[in-house]
Amino acid sequence: MNQDKRAQASTTTTARPWMGQSWPRSSTGRSSLVEPLPHHISCEALHVTFRAEPSAIANLLPPDLEPLDTGEGWVMIAEMAKVSASNPEQMWRDPSRSSYNECVLGFYCRFGDRIGRYSALVWVDRDWSLGMGAIFGWGKRLGTIDRTRHQATNPAFDEKTHTLGGTVSRYGRRVLDIAVTFEDGGDAIDALPGHAASTFLYRYIASPAPDVPDIEQLFELGFSNVSMSGIKQGAGMLSFGDAEDEDLDLLGKVEITGGYAYQRGWTTDRQARLLKDYTAG
Amino acid sequence: MNQDKRAQASTTTTARPWMGQSWPRSSTGRSSLVEPLPHHISCEALHVTFRAEPSAIANLLPPDLEPLDTGEGWVMIAEMAKVSASNPEQMWRDPSRSSYNECVLGFYCRFGDRIGRYSALVWVDRDWSLGMGAIFGWGKRLGTIDRTRHQATNPAFDEKTHTLGGTVSRYGRRVLDIAVTFEDGGDAIDALPGHAASTFLYRYIASPAPDVPDIEQLFELGFSNVSMSGIKQGAGMLSFGDAEDEDLDLLGKVEITGGYAYQRGWTTDRQARLLKDYTAG
Amino acid sequence: MNQDKRAQASTTTTARPWMGQSWPRSSTGRSSLVEPLPHHISCEALHVTFRAEPSAIANLLPPDLEPLDTGEGWVMIAEMAKVSASNPEQMWRDPSRSSYNECVLGFYCRFGDRIGRYSALVWVDRDWSLGMGAIFGWGKRLGTIDRTRHQATNPAFDEKTHTLGGTVSRYGRRVLDIAVTFEDGGDAIDALPGHAASTFLYRYIASPAPDVPDIEQLFELGFSNVSMSGIKQGAGMLSFGDAEDEDLDLLGKVEITGGYAYQRGWTTDRQARLLKDYTAG
Amino acid sequence: MNQDKRAQASTTTTARPWMGQSWPRSSTGRSSLVEPLPHHISCEALHVTFRAEPSAIANLLPPDLEPLDTGEGWVMIAEMAKVSASNPEQMWRDPSRSSYNECVLGFYCRFGDRIGRYSALVWVDRDWSLGMGAIFGWGKRLGTIDRTRHQATNPAFDEKTHTLGGTVSRYGRRVLDIAVTFEDGGDAIDALPGHAASTFLYRYIASPAPDVPDIEQLFELGFSNVSMSGIKQGAGMLSFGDAEDEDLDLLGKVEITGGYAYQRGWTTDRQARLLKDYTAG
Repeated sequence: MNQDKRAQASTTTTARPWMGQSWPRSSTGRSSLVEPLPHHISCEALHVTFRAEPSAIANLLPPDLEPLDTGEGWVMIAEMAKVSASNPEQMWRDPSRSSYNECVLGFYCRFGDRIGRYSALVWVDRDWSLGMGAIFGWGKRLGTIDRTRHQATNPAFDEKTHTLGGTVSRYGRRVLDIAVTFEDGGDAIDALPGHAASTFLYRYIASPAPDVPDIEQLFELGFSNVSMSGIKQGAGMLSFGDAEDEDLDLLGKVEITGGYAYQRGWTTDRQARLLKDYTAG
Repeated sequence: MNQDKRAQASTTTTARPWMGQSWPRSSTGRSSLVEPLPHHISCEALHVTFRAEPSAIANLLPPDLEPLDTGEGWVMIAEMAKVSASNPEQMWRDPSRSSYNECVLGFYCRFGDRIGRYSALVWVDRDWSLGMGAIFGWGKRLGTIDRTRHQATNPAFDEKTHTLGGTVSRYGRRVLDIAVTFEDGGDAIDALPGHAASTFLYRYIASPAPDVPDIEQLFELGFSNVSMSGIKQGAGMLSFGDAEDEDLDLLGKVEITGGYAYQRGWTTDRQARLLKDYTAG
Repeated sequence: MNQDKRAQASTTTTARPWMGQSWPRSSTGRSSLVEPLPHHISCEALHVTFRAEPSAIANLLPPDLEPLDTGEGWVMIAEMAKVSASNPEQMWRDPSRSSYNECVLGFYCRFGDRIGRYSALVWVDRDWSLGMGAIFGWGKRLGTIDRTRHQATNPAFDEKTHTLGGTVSRYGRRVLDIAVTFEDGGDAIDALPGHAASTFLYRYIASPAPDVPDIEQLFELGFSNVSMSGIKQGAGMLSFGDAEDEDLDLLGKVEITGGYAYQRGWTTDRQARLLKDYTAG
Repeated sequence: MNQDKRAQASTTTTARPWMGQSWPRSSTGRSSLVEPLPHHISCEALHVTFRAEPSAIANLLPPDLEPLDTGEGWVMIAEMAKVSASNPEQMWRDPSRSSYNECVLGFYCRFGDRIGRYSALVWVDRDWSLGMGAIFGWGKRLGTIDRTRHQATNPAFDEKTHTLGGTVSRYGRRVLDIAVTFEDGGDAIDALPGHAASTFLYRYIASPAPDVPDIEQLFELGFSNVSMSGIKQGAGMLSFGDAEDEDLDLLGKVEITGGYAYQRGWTTDRQARLLKDYTAG
């Protein structure tokens, strides 16, 4: 079934119109938490890379994804924008449906001999972004995400060497802090080291009924329209806080390997490829 | 497969432990947005009943659920508490994971000749409550939900006749207001009229891949440990606001039929019964 | 000048009407952050008493207030309601302007040979409550305040012995936790031990100009219409968190002396008595 | 008395140290809501200018400030940064104490024959910014302030002509919306028309006691270290919402005269000049 037909599928089972990219659906689809895909996404990001013990990383990897020997991971904190292709005017008519903040903690890992990126823990500050988690298998929860605004006209930013930071908290406890110091404005570089792989998605949604299987699937997803600009390299800092139920303590001690700032844009669409369906068999 | 075995299912596919009632899962399950079911729930509720045109109600009913000729619906706004049976101490150690506010707008409806309740639109103010929507098919989104606190020691509550209100807003626009006036303290009654049916669940989660079907299922769910107390009857008020993308305008003009306050408690568990799977065939 | 005349004072200096209990003022006074006083206040409180070193307490007492040798202090966390006497319908028309949560950390202390209560640190979750700080000299800042909702219909509250808790966080860090365990439902008592004194207010507002003095004043304030009900005694717990810039570390180790739950109501009005004006010279 | 001595004034009245730029004060001053002045401020602003009837504007002007015949006013919505000169590292260690959003609605007006700017209504989203209102007489209240993030890498921003918007809501109701359309990227200009005057401050803080006068003062304040960059001109839009108690309905119909985007930076310090003290006599 192609994508457009799929979107209309339930309409054919009833005389009534019935639409919406996500719950709650209605005859118009407007009430849906998630707006029609694809979404054009962009970020003004601060990014710190680290290495952890591969066996520690395994605590945060789903079945069939294996840690790399290098133990490479990253934390990104960004001020972001989302624009549903179906409603480009929303970004100025109702910016609370477009602007958001996000933190991703992820790892490079393997599915068989394919290497990719996996976003293990994600914190966002809008429900419509959280709602994407059920569709794409991202581990999104709500958090409070703040980052330094590097506004050049601020008298405090007079000096070229500066440090930018980002913090995440959840239910009144600090989850993590990152910071990057840019000596003399930082080194402009052409590309973020090692950041080109596609992404793995692990989707798990429990069933409400004893005799209906849970949803448990592994996918691979690429993004389109990807572009980056303004990549600067500096010296990274990262520390984990004492927030409960975040499982960051499972990572043990990590070694910081880099710090960056950049802008990045892409388009997210329902173009994933199923790698494994755990409930099928 | 029984429920306990189901919860461990993915563990059997890998040497690594892998747990969690919802995303994000981990080796411990602690990072999960939703805590282990069952959940013990309670509410201190304000409740207004109304009638709308059945054809208008149909705009908010999923395929195969049909409006009643009586057009009966309700709005409930409550201060609530949730306690995961797996962690009863959390309610005092971390009340932000237990206390929440909720508004439900629902309708009585039919599946074939079975009558039940359907929660069409739900607003909550905690992400862990929103996360239940993906499991149980509730149309939960985040909103700001406020209600009058009827604290008897407040000098403003000296008079026995009083009015209690509740409001919901979302992204800075008013969704709806309700209020109930209790003359001379209100009439104590034994049961809420017509509120005994089980509930229908409509679960829709879009697929991330073009060749993997969306999840679209209809369930029936009963609750256990149900109790009510302190039911009082008064005169209800209800008005819908101008919030965007809420689809309340689809209901047209509604007729208020009652107003109530009560406490209610129950246990929510994964004991639903599948009525129809739209994606199965 | 009596109070009513005082409220109109600025009107007499101009042909234009100009009103409002606080900034921002206007020709109608409606835009004012704080609504017209008096305010009827009530709370559903959890309350833990403690003893600290008097010399440690002195770190949080303004000039001329001296700690008692007994070192008595308390922390109260409550779900609260405020009703401006000028607008009693607001509590149901717009409960977000009436319902709030508050935590007070205070001490008994002396001004000369007068003993009273002093609220050293206060956290609230509404700006209109914070705005009272400038008028009355309360140390209010915004925090996230949560407490257990003891709803009797919740299946988790089946047992008579239960624990209620409250937490405060600020800018994503935990400020403090309290909890009270009520064995067999707790002991009903007639009055909270030692809680009858009037309150001291310390009011400090920096001047915007080098040659205009800061405001620095000490007042005494009593409340009217005071009533309490449902006082229960249990065993208290209290711990301070790692939130920055809260100065709770100055208290050192404290000894818990009691734990209570109660409802309390009163009226707050501009009936304070000036004890000392530091800026008068 | 010079400024440094003034800051220490209360220390001289007691043996105990006692500090803090605002309530709540302590022996260290750390608990203060407002951090030590001066503050370095910057904004990434969207700005719409309008004309209203001078008699309508007078509803929002304090005694002795008179509207201009031209009826010029503006609305600015910005993502902002504040850095206390006393703690420059805070901007990256704890960005939630540095990043904020603000909306200002102001007018040009006259004090005698002096022309200046007056910020009549201000909405911010941090308590430490709100706390500046008591010191400087700004009409700050909390609101939810959102604006479009114009991130060039977002695929939705491919076209050079674009519209940026900003919205303010308060207690779940829309206060106002602005937007500016920049044809072909907008016209770069050197300075914002007519924006060079100093500012008037109206400071009103009610007294807690019947026999102590309210604080009511008019000041003039200039800023230092002022710089602007990236000024672009476009076509403005502005509409007022239905939020209660905002007094925007007093302005009647307004005529839009311009739309701009810019960055601006300055330093705010306690360098105001008293124009009139209403309580002095």
